[in-house]
Amino acid sequence: MFDQMIENVRNMKPLIHCITNYVTVNDVANILLACGASPIMADDALEVEEITSICNGLTINIGTLNARTIESMLLAGKKANELGAITVLDPVGAGASKLRTETTFTLLKEIKFSVIRGNISEIKTVYQGSGATKGVDASVSDMVTEDNLNDAIYLAKELSKKTKAIIAITGAIDIVADENKVYIIRNGHPTMSNITGTGCMLSALITAFCASNNMKRQSALLDMNKEHLLEATAAAVICEGLSGEKAYAKMVELDGGTSTFRMCFIDAVSQMNDEKLKEGMKVEIR
Amino acid sequence: MFDQMIENVRNMKPLIHCITNYVTVNDVANILLACGASPIMADDALEVEEITSICNGLTINIGTLNARTIESMLLAGKKANELGAITVLDPVGAGASKLRTETTFTLLKEIKFSVIRGNISEIKTVYQGSGATKGVDASVSDMVTEDNLNDAIYLAKELSKKTKAIIAITGAIDIVADENKVYIIRNGHPTMSNITGTGCMLSALITAFCASNNMKRQSALLDMNKEHLLEATAAAVICEGLSGEKAYAKMVELDGGTSTFRMCFIDAVSQMNDEKLKEGMKVEIR
Amino acid sequence: MFDQMIENVRNMKPLIHCITNYVTVNDVANILLACGASPIMADDALEVEEITSICNGLTINIGTLNARTIESMLLAGKKANELGAITVLDPVGAGASKLRTETTFTLLKEIKFSVIRGNISEIKTVYQGSGATKGVDASVSDMVTEDNLNDAIYLAKELSKKTKAIIAITGAIDIVADENKVYIIRNGHPTMSNITGTGCMLSALITAFCASNNMKRQSALLDMNKEHLLEATAAAVICEGLSGEKAYAKMVELDGGTSTFRMCFIDAVSQMNDEKLKEGMKVEIR
Repeated sequence: MFDQMIENVRNMKPLIHCITNYVTVNDVANILLACGASPIMADDALEVEEITSICNGLTINIGTLNARTIESMLLAGKKANELGAITVLDPVGAGASKLRTETTFTLLKEIKFSVIRGNISEIKTVYQGSGATKGVDASVSDMVTEDNLNDAIYLAKELSKKTKAIIAITGAIDIVADENKVYIIRNGHPTMSNITGTGCMLSALITAFCASNNMKRQSALLDMNKEHLLEATAAAVICEGLSGEKAYAKMVELDGGTSTFRMCFIDAVSQMNDEKLKEGMKVEIR
Repeated sequence: MFDQMIENVRNMKPLIHCITNYVTVNDVANILLACGASPIMADDALEVEEITSICNGLTINIGTLNARTIESMLLAGKKANELGAITVLDPVGAGASKLRTETTFTLLKEIKFSVIRGNISEIKTVYQGSGATKGVDASVSDMVTEDNLNDAIYLAKELSKKTKAIIAITGAIDIVADENKVYIIRNGHPTMSNITGTGCMLSALITAFCASNNMKRQSALLDMNKEHLLEATAAAVICEGLSGEKAYAKMVELDGGTSTFRMCFIDAVSQMNDEKLKEGMKVEIR
Repeated sequence: MFDQMIENVRNMKPLIHCITNYVTVNDVANILLACGASPIMADDALEVEEITSICNGLTINIGTLNARTIESMLLAGKKANELGAITVLDPVGAGASKLRTETTFTLLKEIKFSVIRGNISEIKTVYQGSGATKGVDASVSDMVTEDNLNDAIYLAKELSKKTKAIIAITGAIDIVADENKVYIIRNGHPTMSNITGTGCMLSALITAFCASNNMKRQSALLDMNKEHLLEATAAAVICEGLSGEKAYAKMVELDGGTSTFRMCFIDAVSQMNDEKLKEGMKVEIR
């Protein structure tokens, strides 16, 4: 597994349409370029459908949403579905305000996502809007630990069953699941939470990896590619975590702080290859 | 004084709501994380009150204001006042356009600010909108120097009396004042003006320092905490200036340019502690 | 030639009004500061005319355009023309959506630009909206190479004749032309395309160089300054390309990736001077 994931991105150079927040948008553009993809940012209703049409994947990130961009998210997402392009949802802050929670629910209702990535708190909010009837165990409310890992995996699988999307719950331990299979990934470093944008960058990486490792670009066939998408999402999560580890080592070597870490993190993605990925990954499959 | 200012931020990890410009927003988020706080950016009227409600402090920065975000600033500021949360105003470019000047006046009228930070030109504009009747000495129109320092201090104290806010006038020499007491700070380095965002980042730092060193979170008691807020604002200004000095030294060591300086500046904030602060501060109290 | 181009920027410290995209806006602000200019970002219709009035140059970049900012672009551009200030158009993504193409055409119709800078694909779209009747050779559709260089030069000169603007077509080989004269510039490094913002930063640099090396600030006299603007634009393009070369060398030395390259690129601009420029330039004049 993970044989040519990164090589495929570098060869295909997928064009990724990002409707994303203005806080980390520069990091998102640079991480896409670092992994071999190309970014295009466009958020106006008058052009998002056209832009999505020339792209291989779409990331919707609700980080600094407003009425104008929410409309654009819906238009772009529907167009991506129509064309069978990869769609990734990053429900930043879902649960923190009604606007974010309700927008997340609307997006889930109107758009079929290939992958949904968030922290455990955001994913729990998504779950509530997925039409799931079974409650979520309260033990996974704050963060995923070895103690509540099974509950979090259950949540991810259930949500995948409901949404037909790959679910990525990221934090100290990362979970990437469809309804049957789960990758548990223990790469990463705590310093990643001391810079902004690691979540947003990961969602963009996932979009690029999925777009480049998706065998068919036909909406009706998306389910056939589930296996590819699951593996591609896991590879992106490993790439991110491993880059965090390498960035931390470099930061210490340079006696730098968090901004040095940030530079070294993007550097590490730009220097990543499938060999390093396979060598450094800490993956368990269940 | 300044005994545990930074330690308090790192322990409390205050959540800071930023309604800020899109030019330096990423730097603002990263500097908050570097000092131990957490940023949340949200600027839509439909959610700003809710977001402010879960936060410990609010920064309002008018850098790239528009009608939509001005409304959000007012809603968030009033909510913060209602809850007794720290409110910091950064009147970027006040005086440069009617929109900025009038928005500054409206914000001052509708919201009670804990701290107002700007350069001398912006603070003079704020003064004009504060209802002050005494004119401001023309000698402080351009920059604060040893020659016009007394006039600038007078301006800061008068403005503090009018607004009940701590006033921070920053430049080559920094002034942090309430109506009775002033800290004159001579930390910093000229290279800080060769990167964008040092002002915006400082306003965010001040918000984090005040939120973490404010003993009561009750609106009615804000005045009781004046002493704490004055000291917390001064500590943030010293932290910024000292980080500028350390960044310059590192830049020279690395034979780098202004972008290296920027990285080393955020690094220095992430590596700052109360011991370094007390050792490096150049403060005079009057 | 190019005797004091950079020194003039550092001495004059021109204030540049940027209406630009939120993806690379921080890089644009920092590159302006790095070359000795000062940036001011303002995009609301209520203030753009006032802001343009206090500036020496205006960059209009349509990277993340929307109805609100398009109106502001038109207002600011007309005001700049009225005052004889330098105006630079960066038609990001022209051709990729109707909104971008039509906005480009509207801007061209309503505003007289001093310089238009884009990649070959964007410039071809601009050409279609310039009222030109002669078709453009299809051989220059993708990128400018030694093989189709003559066709690209022809396109640049024709477009300059139509628009009265200096035309800069940038890529592996850069072309800077008015209707009679062309600078062919072979500085630069492929790694520049692995970070976001090199195009946007270049348009800002061009604005600063032209504003500082423009002898008269009178609209009616703009044509008299053609020679100065052509040379200033070429100098900015060389400054960018040479900085890319220096950044690549430093990146290799530091064993860094694309984010290190980005830092070293802005560093190199901040460390550039006329002597280095003349020593490192690879220019051919036809």
